[in-house]
Amino acid sequence: MKPLTYRDAGVDIAAGEEAVRRIAPLAKATFRPEVLGGIGAFAGFVRVPSGYHEPVLVSSADGVGSKLKVPFLADRHDTVGIDLVAMGVNDLLVHGAEPLYFLDYIGIGRIDPARVEALYAPGEYDLAGFAVGIVERERILDGAAVKPGDVVLGLASSGLHSNGYSLARRIVFDVLRLGVDSPLPGTGRSVGEVLLEPTRIYAPAVRALLGAVPVSAMANVTGGGLTGNVPRVLPEGCRVVLRRSAWREPAVFATLREAGRVSEPEMLRTFNLGVGYVVIVRPGDADRARQVLTSAGETVTAIGEVVAGQRGVELAG
Amino acid sequence: MKPLTYRDAGVDIAAGEEAVRRIAPLAKATFRPEVLGGIGAFAGFVRVPSGYHEPVLVSSADGVGSKLKVPFLADRHDTVGIDLVAMGVNDLLVHGAEPLYFLDYIGIGRIDPARVEALYAPGEYDLAGFAVGIVERERILDGAAVKPGDVVLGLASSGLHSNGYSLARRIVFDVLRLGVDSPLPGTGRSVGEVLLEPTRIYAPAVRALLGAVPVSAMANVTGGGLTGNVPRVLPEGCRVVLRRSAWREPAVFATLREAGRVSEPEMLRTFNLGVGYVVIVRPGDADRARQVLTSAGETVTAIGEVVAGQRGVELAG
Repeated sequence: MKPLTYRDAGVDIAAGEEAVRRIAPLAKATFRPEVLGGIGAFAGFVRVPSGYHEPVLVSSADGVGSKLKVPFLADRHDTVGIDLVAMGVNDLLVHGAEPLYFLDYIGIGRIDPARVEALYAPGEYDLAGFAVGIVERERILDGAAVKPGDVVLGLASSGLHSNGYSLARRIVFDVLRLGVDSPLPGTGRSVGEVLLEPTRIYAPAVRALLGAVPVSAMANVTGGGLTGNVPRVLPEGCRVVLRRSAWREPAVFATLREAGRVSEPEMLRTFNLGVGYVVIVRPGDADRARQVLTSAGETVTAIGEVVAGQRGVELAG
Repeated sequence: MKPLTYRDAGVDIAAGEEAVRRIAPLAKATFRPEVLGGIGAFAGFVRVPSGYHEPVLVSSADGVGSKLKVPFLADRHDTVGIDLVAMGVNDLLVHGAEPLYFLDYIGIGRIDPARVEALYAPGEYDLAGFAVGIVERERILDGAAVKPGDVVLGLASSGLHSNGYSLARRIVFDVLRLGVDSPLPGTGRSVGEVLLEPTRIYAPAVRALLGAVPVSAMANVTGGGLTGNVPRVLPEGCRVVLRRSAWREPAVFATLREAGRVSEPEMLRTFNLGVGYVVIVRPGDADRARQVLTSAGETVTAIGEVVAGQRGVELAG
């Protein structure tokens, strides 16, 4: 028997080091001044920003779920990193935090080479992202400020974001039997283009908003959709009534609904249906909030209001 | 066609929520007082500890590599979480940081159910961990303090830790054709027991050490072994000479070396060979450091010294 090496066993340390060398300048270009470079052999270093009286770190860990299957099918890997950052950063924004840094984990080549060869495109990987932000303790947004009468603003999503992909893939690939390059009915775009559209990052708009008007609460519309996520930031005794007809639903959702014969409650808890992020403000601040968010590049619609009632979300026509 | 649901597509939200409910009290039991509970619907909250003049956050993101294959083979999943924490925490310790919090990511069921059924144990998952610590800026350990004459102490590993598993699995399962319940020659234990031994967490010992003696540098012996990791904390002009005969190598490494006919340089850069963590101190502090680390439960050996020379590690007999 020939002597075995780590490389024979499928681990190519030189290739790993080469990948890190290529990524390093890209990562460096994103550093805030608080990032201390050139120290850490084993870890990354970030100064706690000055100017906080009682700084609180706000952290989120997430992946992109089964959306990760699409880059393998389409062999296009330049969008899913945006999803990973967006999933983490949008969660921090909800609580009023300023994004501070982001770390990622790439798991690659863990599956035995022979199985990979037989079943998947070589180089299949898993991704996880960790986003850390910071907020002044007394400015944490946790929904306690929400009151009946508040206005619910919806910020348009860029598409499916990173949720509902197990169902979407089932419908598109198994029911409709489309390929990644096929046109997706109703959308004027290919399956690959629609399903790989990156999740929108709301950081610039939310930053502008927080500097301009008081905000009662915000919600990131992820797994669970509007009905699952908006209640997470409502206090007891507050109920949100959403006017289903108030916002324009992108065509992809109608296509999925019809082809999969998906019920409306199921659509609502699985997909964002066109609203990627929710902002709740006092009625007197709603116009100014829309203005600020729109100037920051968002498409904003008043999608409902807060009423007194059992904590939850209900849909009106 | 029957209307499709998210659950039909393989996503069981109720099962996910049940898992979180079960984990919550376990996670809570580990909280430091800085963890602010009950706020965050979308993220976790940790106060920056008081008493720091210029606090620096030290972060590490990691997985457990292909060690994760072993729990599936052995159907034993109660040790790999310790590995995940250890991989992150030991990296922070190296820089003098106090561990503050840990987040994990579990990717599960991303592989299509039919493929999973055919190929893998159901419930296969991927894990990533994210450890955050904190350190006073002027107390960051980066190796700059290392000087010729310093003593290199090795802290015993608990086994393979989380490195070299692609090669180890190849040798144990393909060359030796053993099963997880077979005795692993030379070890007096089963393959499963040896390969699932959790990575040692050096936090209590390092904390005691930092309170007792000045430390020049530390290194966590992960991927790359002693020859790959010790140079990461050496300044230019400092070279470490390790006395190969100074420490006892656990039997598992001899078994792997012989069965795989693995060369010595390959063994050294793939496995920890019994030394899981390295501490470098001034010669006059070495006895006290050994004493403190031993009292904290570590097995400590003087394994080498720092000499003037080209930055790197060399082996002596």
